[in-house]
Amino acid sequence: MIDTSELMEMIDRGISRLPLPDHLPGLYDPIRYAMNGGGKRLRPLLCLATCQALGVYPEEALNQALGVELFHNFTLLHDDVMDRADSRRGRPTVHCKWNDTTAILSGDTMLTLATQIVAKCPSDKLPSVLAIFNSTAMQIYEGQQMDMDFESRSDVTVNEYMDMIRLKTSVLLGCACQMGALMADASGSTVRQLNEFAVNLGLAFQLQDDYLDTFGDPATFGKNTGGDILNDKKTWLLSTAMQEAPERIGQWINAGRTQEKIEAVKAVYEELRLPARIHELIDSYAAAALSALDMVNISSVDHEWFASLTHNLSLREK
Amino acid sequence: MIDTSELMEMIDRGISRLPLPDHLPGLYDPIRYAMNGGGKRLRPLLCLATCQALGVYPEEALNQALGVELFHNFTLLHDDVMDRADSRRGRPTVHCKWNDTTAILSGDTMLTLATQIVAKCPSDKLPSVLAIFNSTAMQIYEGQQMDMDFESRSDVTVNEYMDMIRLKTSVLLGCACQMGALMADASGSTVRQLNEFAVNLGLAFQLQDDYLDTFGDPATFGKNTGGDILNDKKTWLLSTAMQEAPERIGQWINAGRTQEKIEAVKAVYEELRLPARIHELIDSYAAAALSALDMVNISSVDHEWFASLTHNLSLREK
Repeated sequence: MIDTSELMEMIDRGISRLPLPDHLPGLYDPIRYAMNGGGKRLRPLLCLATCQALGVYPEEALNQALGVELFHNFTLLHDDVMDRADSRRGRPTVHCKWNDTTAILSGDTMLTLATQIVAKCPSDKLPSVLAIFNSTAMQIYEGQQMDMDFESRSDVTVNEYMDMIRLKTSVLLGCACQMGALMADASGSTVRQLNEFAVNLGLAFQLQDDYLDTFGDPATFGKNTGGDILNDKKTWLLSTAMQEAPERIGQWINAGRTQEKIEAVKAVYEELRLPARIHELIDSYAAAALSALDMVNISSVDHEWFASLTHNLSLREK
Repeated sequence: MIDTSELMEMIDRGISRLPLPDHLPGLYDPIRYAMNGGGKRLRPLLCLATCQALGVYPEEALNQALGVELFHNFTLLHDDVMDRADSRRGRPTVHCKWNDTTAILSGDTMLTLATQIVAKCPSDKLPSVLAIFNSTAMQIYEGQQMDMDFESRSDVTVNEYMDMIRLKTSVLLGCACQMGALMADASGSTVRQLNEFAVNLGLAFQLQDDYLDTFGDPATFGKNTGGDILNDKKTWLLSTAMQEAPERIGQWINAGRTQEKIEAVKAVYEELRLPARIHELIDSYAAAALSALDMVNISSVDHEWFASLTHNLSLREK
């Protein structure tokens, strides 16, 4: 039976034992800083839980879980440079605490380290593990490129937006589950179903993220709401509103960073019933995740663990 | 018998067929640009020549040769951002032609693509190929970090400098030869000797680079000389002079970017006989390279090819 806190301890222990040397602090300290900054540890948790649900001791997938988490944090280091973000998880980002150069080089080091760690597996599994890991990475870079391309466009469709978040966010959750399944010697169809589960979970997760950035409660969300609106970020909310009420929304694009803009855009979103509609959509992705999971042969208590995780992530308030 | 121009054609053909999609030009055009910018193609050439000298058709090592060349160009993209370099091989660098964001993300993509391509090998060879590739990458990041750390130090010793260039430059030449040897099913000791050959070749190569930047003929060198002096770059020349004539050199550190500084520093170097002494050192590394090569069982015509490459690179004027 999956015990979340036991798996989280396994992850924390693994992170504290990552092979990070004491020399060259300029290179390795930022990696320690990034890896010890907390975060939900959702990806390694999914990897370990998948392995365990398929009947194999979760530690068998620990290297893959840690590699995926390292990869995720590498993308955050580089994305934060690209987005000029100055804070993450309540602390200065690496490029702010050190500088761009450090964030670039320590990030590169994390990517190679992630590849080394996922590759720590029985050699018969290495080709599949590596193929999934690398092709996931390529998709994530494409998602990040699409996200950046969207910044200079005002005609991003909802479909394009969904394609982008699938690449930028969801496929790494899929990769985490696939790794866990591979380490448990699962069949090809089980690996595919678990990927399907996690990709749909990722879409629900990201849409809830979009919702919270605009409609979350700042007290529980942990940061100010309205940032996406101020930045004209092409989210599901904005893409949908641009398609359905282009004039009322269009006048607020590039209109400065005021509280008035936040209120006006939120009013349009509410008129279009977007808060309710995004939750219908989130529910439909959560349901798609669970119906993929229904095809996998796991115990009903483990199924319940995944269902409850899906439920909590879809309805989370932070 | 090794035919350089035949191998170069194989490399060019391989580069033109890299799996770079037509969509997302913001991501893939900079990679095409970087890979089509010329360069000596020294690393893939060493990889293919090694494979062929060991009796195996060089195309067997083409993926590894291309992966190493992609990796090398990835490091150039990121290094150029870190060093704020605006031109390379006579063209604007990627971050100048596009922007930092593009150089970071396209560079990340090249690193993962390089890993995908070196991994295209028989599965029994995959663990060794991947282990050598990844550990080489880690050493190169460490070398780059040391190089950056040196910028803010005035007490860099010659030994530290040699350690840095071994990591930053030489180990990738070693990796290229090791890949070629692995694909030719060479024994462990052959792989090690060829690595030893290439690492020493790399040191000779980098020292000649240092020499040319200060004492080269601008007409043949292709760029102005004296850049390292103006930037107080911790080269073999500067580290040696700082140890042997700290006062006469020290007064010129951080002394502005004048022709007078170039001439004065060169005069100290010449008094210390550094041009002659760096060439004695280059010759000794070239000799070490060739004596490692003597231990490898290859034909005398192939041995001659490697000896002549070593000679040309050590004495090159550009």
